[in-house]
Amino acid sequence: MAIHSPEHPVHPTDPTPTPTPVTVLGMGPMGRALAGALLAAGHPVTVWNRTPGRAAELVERGAAEAGSVRAAVGASPLVIVCVIDYAAADAIVRPAAAALRGRTLVNLTADTPDRARATAAWAAEHGVGYLDGSILTPATAIGTDAAVVIYSGPEERFAAHRSTLAALGGRSDHLGADPGRAAAFDVAALDFCWTAVSGYLHALALARAEGITAAQLLPYAQGIVELLGQVVPVYAERADADSHPGDVSNVTSVAAGIEHIVHASAARGLDTGVLDAALAVARRAIAEGRGRDDFSRLVDTVRVA
Amino acid sequence: MAIHSPEHPVHPTDPTPTPTPVTVLGMGPMGRALAGALLAAGHPVTVWNRTPGRAAELVERGAAEAGSVRAAVGASPLVIVCVIDYAAADAIVRPAAAALRGRTLVNLTADTPDRARATAAWAAEHGVGYLDGSILTPATAIGTDAAVVIYSGPEERFAAHRSTLAALGGRSDHLGADPGRAAAFDVAALDFCWTAVSGYLHALALARAEGITAAQLLPYAQGIVELLGQVVPVYAERADADSHPGDVSNVTSVAAGIEHIVHASAARGLDTGVLDAALAVARRAIAEGRGRDDFSRLVDTVRVA
Repeated sequence: MAIHSPEHPVHPTDPTPTPTPVTVLGMGPMGRALAGALLAAGHPVTVWNRTPGRAAELVERGAAEAGSVRAAVGASPLVIVCVIDYAAADAIVRPAAAALRGRTLVNLTADTPDRARATAAWAAEHGVGYLDGSILTPATAIGTDAAVVIYSGPEERFAAHRSTLAALGGRSDHLGADPGRAAAFDVAALDFCWTAVSGYLHALALARAEGITAAQLLPYAQGIVELLGQVVPVYAERADADSHPGDVSNVTSVAAGIEHIVHASAARGLDTGVLDAALAVARRAIAEGRGRDDFSRLVDTVRVA
Repeated sequence: MAIHSPEHPVHPTDPTPTPTPVTVLGMGPMGRALAGALLAAGHPVTVWNRTPGRAAELVERGAAEAGSVRAAVGASPLVIVCVIDYAAADAIVRPAAAALRGRTLVNLTADTPDRARATAAWAAEHGVGYLDGSILTPATAIGTDAAVVIYSGPEERFAAHRSTLAALGGRSDHLGADPGRAAAFDVAALDFCWTAVSGYLHALALARAEGITAAQLLPYAQGIVELLGQVVPVYAERADADSHPGDVSNVTSVAAGIEHIVHASAARGLDTGVLDAALAVARRAIAEGRGRDDFSRLVDTVRVA
């Protein structure tokens, strides 16, 4: 094993480089999880939060808490920001443009693709290296094999920090140079996620109103998750092939099913807004002559403009 | 092995009874699948459909096609009806009340719990044995281990036909004497299913509008299915315990996430009705002071009356 003196600096491709110092801005549950995973991987970590005092446990584990964004940014070549949205992220990083110049900013805040592109444009104007990322798993998954973090922005910028970002755990994918691309994957995945979870919570409320406990419904709800696991790849193929043969669940029969759920829900005093809206899309497809197509045809119908 | 002459009729508990003749009313994809599974299990099967000619393949395999509901009903002690909804089912079975008297009608048509109870009341008035059932899996699963069929109504009526109904495959559960109970489980399970599928199709449309193919989104969509598999039992426990600690995904942060999806969708000309309605429920929870609770709190918020 080579010994590196200052006269023999560590080569960037050295398999055991000195861990890169990393700054994490934002100490919500996700920011704390990110900082914790970087500490666990041996990185010097500096943290900052608008309201101090959230980082006590991290400081105990060796993190430095900076008193200002500028000081926090100055401590590391790699700066991660993870806050509630881009309005909050921009309010933190834009006034620190001078400090950020020449460093790499990795924005793991969730927001829309267009806002990611706007912040990337600002970074380019100010000489700030920029990667935009999204975290597709809960904070509890960070640092474990279950974590999924996706990135977009310049390939070489990602390559330079890939080994550091790997400390966040699990799957770490670079999806392309367009800085909005990670956010686009993120909003699409979360669209599926939160709509599905909303449907599940509504189902639990409907069951409860019918005297069925969540525990009693559970095996059937788990059966639906299994079905979703089968439907997801099939509908992906149909969407890409623009082919929706209605051999199993055509739009008309699914619309009839959704009507039953609406009636049963209304009879028990439940909000039917989500179901009404889903039914309206199905009815539009039927009105457009797509009633005999598979329900997957709605991938086209939800496009209104 | 005993030989049963007419003087020694088959005892009901005989392990190898003569297969019960079964009539199937309704030759949609599901009715055909049911009849096919019963044929495969060795039952004499009589079928009927309002529009003749749908049963050619079944007739080739040995089914008898009856020319009238009355003739179809008369052929079997056990009659299954599976059509689009209870309006259609009632229009078929109610005029055949006299023929159905003393037989068992198993209604596998999907509709609301209240309509199941109404049809059960009609059956009781007319001396028709009645079980109300729901099929929780696609027609393609019928006759395989993957099938899930649930029943409600008199326990002894189910017990008498359990072995015949087992021919439909997979899981065959009796959920209670209330004839609306199977339909209640069904609408709740389908509430989750179709809302989730609607969310997935919307996600595919949003991805497409951002230049992402369904195949590219697939691994992340499959990750969401995995997450759902984890969330479903956790939220079931929380709902039953009426305890929603906001340690991971509180209502306020999920609402912010849904807002991003709405903005991203609107920017690409997609219908945002389902998301708007889900967001409205989350905002109502926040207005009620539940913003720091876990998103699972919405199981209460969706109850409006």
